Amino acid sequence: MTYAKPLLRLLDALEKLPGIGPRSAERIAFYLLRTPVEQARALSQAIIDVKERLKFCEICFNLSEAPRCQICEDPARDPSMVCVVEEPKDVLAIEKTKVFQGLYHVLLGAIAPLDGIGPELLKIDELMRRVAEGTMQEIVIATDADRDGETTASYLTKLLRSHNLKITRLASGIPVGSHLEYADQATLARALEGRRLL
Amino acid sequence: MTYAKPLLRLLDALEKLPGIGPRSAERIAFYLLRTPVEQARALSQAIIDVKERLKFCEICFNLSEAPRCQICEDPARDPSMVCVVEEPKDVLAIEKTKVFQGLYHVLLGAIAPLDGIGPELLKIDELMRRVAEGTMQEIVIATDADRDGETTASYLTKLLRSHNLKITRLASGIPVGSHLEYADQATLARALEGRRLL
Repeated sequence: MTYAKPLLRLLDALEKLPGIGPRSAERIAFYLLRTPVEQARALSQAIIDVKERLKFCEICFNLSEAPRCQICEDPARDPSMVCVVEEPKDVLAIEKTKVFQGLYHVLLGAIAPLDGIGPELLKIDELMRRVAEGTMQEIVIATDADRDGETTASYLTKLLRSHNLKITRLASGIPVGSHLEYADQATLARALEGRRLL
Repeated sequence: MTYAKPLLRLLDALEKLPGIGPRSAERIAFYLLRTPVEQARALSQAIIDVKERLKFCEICFNLSEAPRCQICEDPARDPSMVCVVEEPKDVLAIEKTKVFQGLYHVLLGAIAPLDGIGPELLKIDELMRRVAEGTMQEIVIATDADRDGETTASYLTKLLRSHNLKITRLASGIPVGSHLEYADQATLARALEGRRLL
């Protein structure tokens, strides 16, 4: 005796999601079994809608409901500055600061040799093609400050160095509003190295 | 600027699932965005199928594709013994042992006052109605050995005591194949109390 086929198929599909193991898949499946049918339908439909209605912008790979995203289509943005990020959610985080007026390039990931993610799986060729157009003057590398983000940043720096471009990286240091004593060693070291003259 | 509507709706639906917070919801949503459309469709369809094709057995509340489950419909099972469990997956676990020949009653949960789950939310009235039919001679209470499972077991024991029934509980003790030194105090105490004459 085993679970009924529809349940097995659901468990199987859930276990493919990132961070969902057999136990969480079971918990979610039984939750869905017991939940009102409208809620289950809403989830099912939201998955389809996201696949059908959201695409990646053909220029910068940010999320977009149109072939090109709002930022790439905005004539007020400065095409000489391009900020390179790992994920669409990073675009959102930077937009919220209202400090950056340039364009973006979303890599859709970071180089992670341990997870088998090499540069060829990221939108790096597409970035180099944009660079070759010649309008960019500065590239701000805003990949995460973790191991994979740093690996990706070094890789891009090497690749871009031969081009006539200013290459910058987001500053590392003590988070604003945070206490010195809570900063880890590496952050503190970076903060010291990057100290500013007052 | 914020996420596009279809993505917001998906995040919202995902966050309603047990064990999924805003961060995991984001991770899953972006994974689905990038995954082949067939895989996303398979998940979406599996959710609908489970809701449409799987029901709870009208007698014992085990999962079933028909109004009554295979076990309740099996004339070879002994209706004088009923094993009370919390979840359909517990039925599966006990069936795998091939030791139990009686019927089941699935409570669809356990009494958990801290989570606001009182006895009225469980299939306890339905159990009492089955008891009232008079064919049961023994009820094996096989709720979990954790706090909520024990609370539920005591509650059921009190409720059932007035009926002319043998009420039993699964034994607690050292797991088979496990070392004594790894057993926690409570388990070891139960194992001592329940020691068998050899």
